[in-house]
Amino acid sequence: MSQLSVPHLLGIKNITPEDIHLIFETADNFKEVLNRPIRKVPSLRDITIANVFFENSTRTRLSFELAEKRLSADTINFASSSSSVKKGETLLDTVNNILAMKVDMIVMRHSSPGAPHFLARHIKANIINAGDGTHEHPTQALLDAYSIRERLGDVAGKKVVIVGDILHSRVALSNIFALKKLGADVMVCGPPTLMPRFIGELGVRVESDLLTALRWCDVANILRIQLERQQMHYFPSLREYAMYYGVNRHVLRQLDKEITIMHPGPINRGVELSSDVADSEHAIILGQVENGVAIRMAVLYLLAGNA
Amino acid sequence: MSQLSVPHLLGIKNITPEDIHLIFETADNFKEVLNRPIRKVPSLRDITIANVFFENSTRTRLSFELAEKRLSADTINFASSSSSVKKGETLLDTVNNILAMKVDMIVMRHSSPGAPHFLARHIKANIINAGDGTHEHPTQALLDAYSIRERLGDVAGKKVVIVGDILHSRVALSNIFALKKLGADVMVCGPPTLMPRFIGELGVRVESDLLTALRWCDVANILRIQLERQQMHYFPSLREYAMYYGVNRHVLRQLDKEITIMHPGPINRGVELSSDVADSEHAIILGQVENGVAIRMAVLYLLAGNA
Amino acid sequence: MSQLSVPHLLGIKNITPEDIHLIFETADNFKEVLNRPIRKVPSLRDITIANVFFENSTRTRLSFELAEKRLSADTINFASSSSSVKKGETLLDTVNNILAMKVDMIVMRHSSPGAPHFLARHIKANIINAGDGTHEHPTQALLDAYSIRERLGDVAGKKVVIVGDILHSRVALSNIFALKKLGADVMVCGPPTLMPRFIGELGVRVESDLLTALRWCDVANILRIQLERQQMHYFPSLREYAMYYGVNRHVLRQLDKEITIMHPGPINRGVELSSDVADSEHAIILGQVENGVAIRMAVLYLLAGNA
Repeated sequence: MSQLSVPHLLGIKNITPEDIHLIFETADNFKEVLNRPIRKVPSLRDITIANVFFENSTRTRLSFELAEKRLSADTINFASSSSSVKKGETLLDTVNNILAMKVDMIVMRHSSPGAPHFLARHIKANIINAGDGTHEHPTQALLDAYSIRERLGDVAGKKVVIVGDILHSRVALSNIFALKKLGADVMVCGPPTLMPRFIGELGVRVESDLLTALRWCDVANILRIQLERQQMHYFPSLREYAMYYGVNRHVLRQLDKEITIMHPGPINRGVELSSDVADSEHAIILGQVENGVAIRMAVLYLLAGNA
Repeated sequence: MSQLSVPHLLGIKNITPEDIHLIFETADNFKEVLNRPIRKVPSLRDITIANVFFENSTRTRLSFELAEKRLSADTINFASSSSSVKKGETLLDTVNNILAMKVDMIVMRHSSPGAPHFLARHIKANIINAGDGTHEHPTQALLDAYSIRERLGDVAGKKVVIVGDILHSRVALSNIFALKKLGADVMVCGPPTLMPRFIGELGVRVESDLLTALRWCDVANILRIQLERQQMHYFPSLREYAMYYGVNRHVLRQLDKEITIMHPGPINRGVELSSDVADSEHAIILGQVENGVAIRMAVLYLLAGNA
Repeated sequence: MSQLSVPHLLGIKNITPEDIHLIFETADNFKEVLNRPIRKVPSLRDITIANVFFENSTRTRLSFELAEKRLSADTINFASSSSSVKKGETLLDTVNNILAMKVDMIVMRHSSPGAPHFLARHIKANIINAGDGTHEHPTQALLDAYSIRERLGDVAGKKVVIVGDILHSRVALSNIFALKKLGADVMVCGPPTLMPRFIGELGVRVESDLLTALRWCDVANILRIQLERQQMHYFPSLREYAMYYGVNRHVLRQLDKEITIMHPGPINRGVELSSDVADSEHAIILGQVENGVAIRMAVLYLLAGNA
């Protein structure tokens, strides 16, 4: 197979395990390219991509922008702060205007869950969801799973725990979909106040005790506490969170094995993850960032071939 | 003729009908280029263009930026929010500093009417006015007239009504100049509170009744109600505006012919234009956006040849 | 010699006179390139540079961006307003994330003195300090000294006075280091309230009377009054500053010779410098801006060769 089953990457929920494997194999090639002195390939030379960000972002936007430049695409950036959105224009009108200027692909981040899915029903260009509210963040889940595959050889059969604020995390949801499609055994761990009510339907283990979760797993993906996103009354205090769910050397010393530590960034050092663990050899956090560019190159390349 | 009569595009008022025809013929060529798989031409490969926006803009800035990239120009973006303007620097100093870095052309949006005209008297680079306060927005008028020519074969002899807030609209003023230079019969229609006092000197028909205006015209260019720009006391309420000047299917059904509907965007759906009309086959709104890139390529290309 | 003695440009304090001469000779070549019709060279074609600005900047960011584009580097821009900094990420994490995406060089402006020096101890990429708080602004000092050399043939033996707010000025400090390394005789002139306590250790003459200072010098570098940076109680009023330290035609007429006037911009016309002087033939202010691109090309080129 050399094509994705979908014209858009809206979420992991909508793609097949074969799609994921194809993305990984394509990313393998691009990762090799990125380690060469000449990191640019002409693959998307005549493609124009608009990065449409209705929410602030650093790493995701830069990662997409670099992926696009490495593929020789033409790029334009649209950020909501300088946008027509404030002038009362609908999302569909905004995007249709960008597309009328002969743009081929849209990378979009939006605060409303389902915004890219809505767009996909109304426009012809390929859409990549770069995060839609608390819903999905598919390229993050792909780079996370790819990083596990790189570190441990395979994702199938591995025990992965996602720790933290599962309720508000698009990273968690996309990770659960991706890991299960690839055959991992998935657990979520966090305070009951930060657990979604539909968690029972996702086919994952649920554990509220951190030590029990870490003793079980091969890999722990530690989510960021998104102070900017949640209501404090859903939540134990930050100090209590760090005390009960913060991963640090003291906690890891109580395990009888080494586990791999992941984090989607940006890290709140001393809250969900201590510095000694974040900077240890067991953490693959910067490897995740590096893999992000290769994964995004693969997704852009494969979707462009699907246009 | 193969050259514009001016080194700058400050407004439609300053250019000749021959200039406009030359821009249209050049845009015809670029529009063909934009519909090819390879949409890039090397025409401005050694030209550097600064997009200097002292006012927020989405579509105009993106349209210019894409036009520049399709022409292979080097571009830099300067937005007032991150600018020295706040540090008390004069406009002329800011622009002279940019030019000292070996920039060849300036595309400028500014809130003060006449700002680009002032600059043109003091600097050597080509200047394109991308909107100066409530004064002119020449590339918008050019793309509007070009879209009428494309739809109806010619502008000369066509009856065009501009509906809405004529008082605060640079789009209206530039459109009036362009349409009259091309031989159209021009009417403006809107509440008397939104009609400029100098309207009598522009050589256009004035009509306050929407239905009368629409019955007369071949083309209706529906202006955006710029809520962010006007004082509410000049104005009937938004609800009254939509009731008396909103263009919708109900109003159009009362005409005995089909008319072409235009809008410079962004649309306030349900205020100046209803969704059923905006999305109908008689609206050429996205065609205007598409033509904008070709028109801007033509203007940039011709002015660069005039340097 | 064809290499810098350092892998980073953190400040002028850390580099040798030979480094400065090498940068100047390299800039001579690039300045010639910038005056040719084709202003682009392929020197950094496979290099990716991130412009990381934690403080607003117009001219410095544009100047670096143009320098990078003239050298054919790939560039990405990171501004703090859209950054993870607000999300509580550490500086080192932010930069390490950018570097993990295979970025080769970092151009950084930061409000904290020493921020780039701290980074240089922890990362492998080349760093260029584009201004760190009130500490250093090395490329500004290099372009200033280069402009003196261009105007007067040499820097050695020239008498240069820096006028204004020495206390809060990174431009002043970097200029003092550069001018002294190149053999100039350096004086600082300003109100005692705007003089740093460590001024005695810098080996410069100190003068509080403007006329005495100007009578002594060959070149006067007039600093900008940075209203946004200082506490007003350190300071005589703006009106008093302009009265006692403002450089204008009236003051210059009292000298028995012509002196060269410099200013790092943006100018507060009528405060530290009057318009008649700023626009006179003795001012080389726009020449400084022009030289800035050549100097930054030289620094980027030489550091890339040092990687």
